[in-house]
Amino acid sequence: MGTTTADAVLVREVGLRDGLQMLAQFMPTPDKLAWIRAEHAAGVREIEVTSLVPARLAPQFADAEAVVREALALPGLCVVALVPNLRGAERAFELGVHKLDYVVSVSRTHNLRNVRREREASLEDLARIVRARDEAGLRGRVRVAAGLSTALGCSYEGRIAVDEVRRCAAALAEAGADEVAVADTVGYADPKLVAEVFTAVQAETGALPLLAHFHDTRGLGLANVKAALDVGVRAFDASLGGIGGCPHAPGATGNVSTEDLCFMLDALGLASGIDLPALLEVRQRLTQWLPGVALHGAVARAGLPTGWRPASSLHRVATS
Amino acid sequence: MGTTTADAVLVREVGLRDGLQMLAQFMPTPDKLAWIRAEHAAGVREIEVTSLVPARLAPQFADAEAVVREALALPGLCVVALVPNLRGAERAFELGVHKLDYVVSVSRTHNLRNVRREREASLEDLARIVRARDEAGLRGRVRVAAGLSTALGCSYEGRIAVDEVRRCAAALAEAGADEVAVADTVGYADPKLVAEVFTAVQAETGALPLLAHFHDTRGLGLANVKAALDVGVRAFDASLGGIGGCPHAPGATGNVSTEDLCFMLDALGLASGIDLPALLEVRQRLTQWLPGVALHGAVARAGLPTGWRPASSLHRVATS
Repeated sequence: MGTTTADAVLVREVGLRDGLQMLAQFMPTPDKLAWIRAEHAAGVREIEVTSLVPARLAPQFADAEAVVREALALPGLCVVALVPNLRGAERAFELGVHKLDYVVSVSRTHNLRNVRREREASLEDLARIVRARDEAGLRGRVRVAAGLSTALGCSYEGRIAVDEVRRCAAALAEAGADEVAVADTVGYADPKLVAEVFTAVQAETGALPLLAHFHDTRGLGLANVKAALDVGVRAFDASLGGIGGCPHAPGATGNVSTEDLCFMLDALGLASGIDLPALLEVRQRLTQWLPGVALHGAVARAGLPTGWRPASSLHRVATS
Repeated sequence: MGTTTADAVLVREVGLRDGLQMLAQFMPTPDKLAWIRAEHAAGVREIEVTSLVPARLAPQFADAEAVVREALALPGLCVVALVPNLRGAERAFELGVHKLDYVVSVSRTHNLRNVRREREASLEDLARIVRARDEAGLRGRVRVAAGLSTALGCSYEGRIAVDEVRRCAAALAEAGADEVAVADTVGYADPKLVAEVFTAVQAETGALPLLAHFHDTRGLGLANVKAALDVGVRAFDASLGGIGGCPHAPGATGNVSTEDLCFMLDALGLASGIDLPALLEVRQRLTQWLPGVALHGAVARAGLPTGWRPASSLHRVATS
């Protein structure tokens, strides 16, 4: 075959937020910064570096200001922070992040339990955040990414109707989101559902960039990525070593592991711009930064194939 | 959407052969038989129960006769044995297996190291096996399945040219194989290559049943299954708990895990006929049968989703 077009895919590291948020141990700030710098050096160009929730609720992110400040010094890195509400967004504006992530659950029950309010209230807050961003003169400088969590299933509600996802996606666009993320928060997705849901969302969100956030809870993470790629999605969240998980599923992995995702994208001839051997070295260091934390991911366990080189050269070999 | 056609997929358990073949510890015959009986009771309808290599070369399979004999007593179970050569095939005929598996490596180097002969000699042996089967009056009663190993990559030769795979597939059909298996022996496949290779093979083997044998070495096992499904493949090897692996990749998994495969097929609305909760119970027993052996597989680790039911009912829920 031989791929000649360099079809680009954004891989966004969320391990520092989604991966750390349920960890009992505090990851020291210098280690977080070393992790961010090392991934940046390996070619990662977007990192969700922290969550701007109140420190009393999430001690893991008590160092948010310091982490954001140092991350902003890295050239070409898009620095993202999760914000739970307008107050968090205002902190994000003050800190100067490039992008903030704001999440609404498609599952009404999950939204109530997660942020103690109705989805409609969460959507109104999104509109307020966008307005506050614009009034602060930050339009064009700070992007508001809005995510739909539990969009592919919910531990409380089970399957989620695709029409509900579609309706929520339209509401995000209506509220002024600059990009839309669709998340399989609890790892219920399968490739068929992914194709169906992302196609439905794209019909509502049009030209807005669309990102997929998959957990590998039941082993389908990469199959789901492939299904999303097949319907045109070109941005994915991932966590190094697949860290993260769910308190209700002991031993479950977190997001798709960044290194396995990069391995597959490369094999498919899709350019992430990430140096995979360098990324695997960062993962090796992660075992020291997070002693006792189980890392997942098959490529690190098995090693790269004999004579592995990035896809462009491999595909040339395959055609000869 | 709502799937109404019951698209059927064959899941073949190969853990007792591919999973055990590199294990130093001998799995006691009663445990092997309990495993076979329990999977049969869970709905598995084809099991590769042993390898008919000389016992001095593979002590793990010294009990092949007893295992085959007991497996043959299970109603509706297709009993398969791997055979390395004509001598092994003759043993298979004597034992009365329903199907024998015979493998040729597409990689010349791998074939030389694995069975110490050229691929051409291996292909000639396949023709001899088919002839011996027919001369013994077993045509129609014993099927000869021929596999192409290293068809998606080789630890010695790296990438394998698709034209080589195509040529070998045509040779298997020419030699009289009743079915063809294509194996990613060392876990190098990716979904794009899978689509390419299986499409090429089908063009050569026409109406012969085609089976895919994937290892999950680098996390792409299920993504590769999905890619094969997308080009029409409807039979897959798998090993319970993903046991197996490769001596050159410490910690690597073996085949795609049977339970994760069944979970995905069900989610896709494809019927394997296997009772997933019952299969997960067999996997639980496997931890006792093989103490100290690392099991893989995400569904067993994370558990089934809340309120999980087999796909037909789920898809009804999704449409309501």
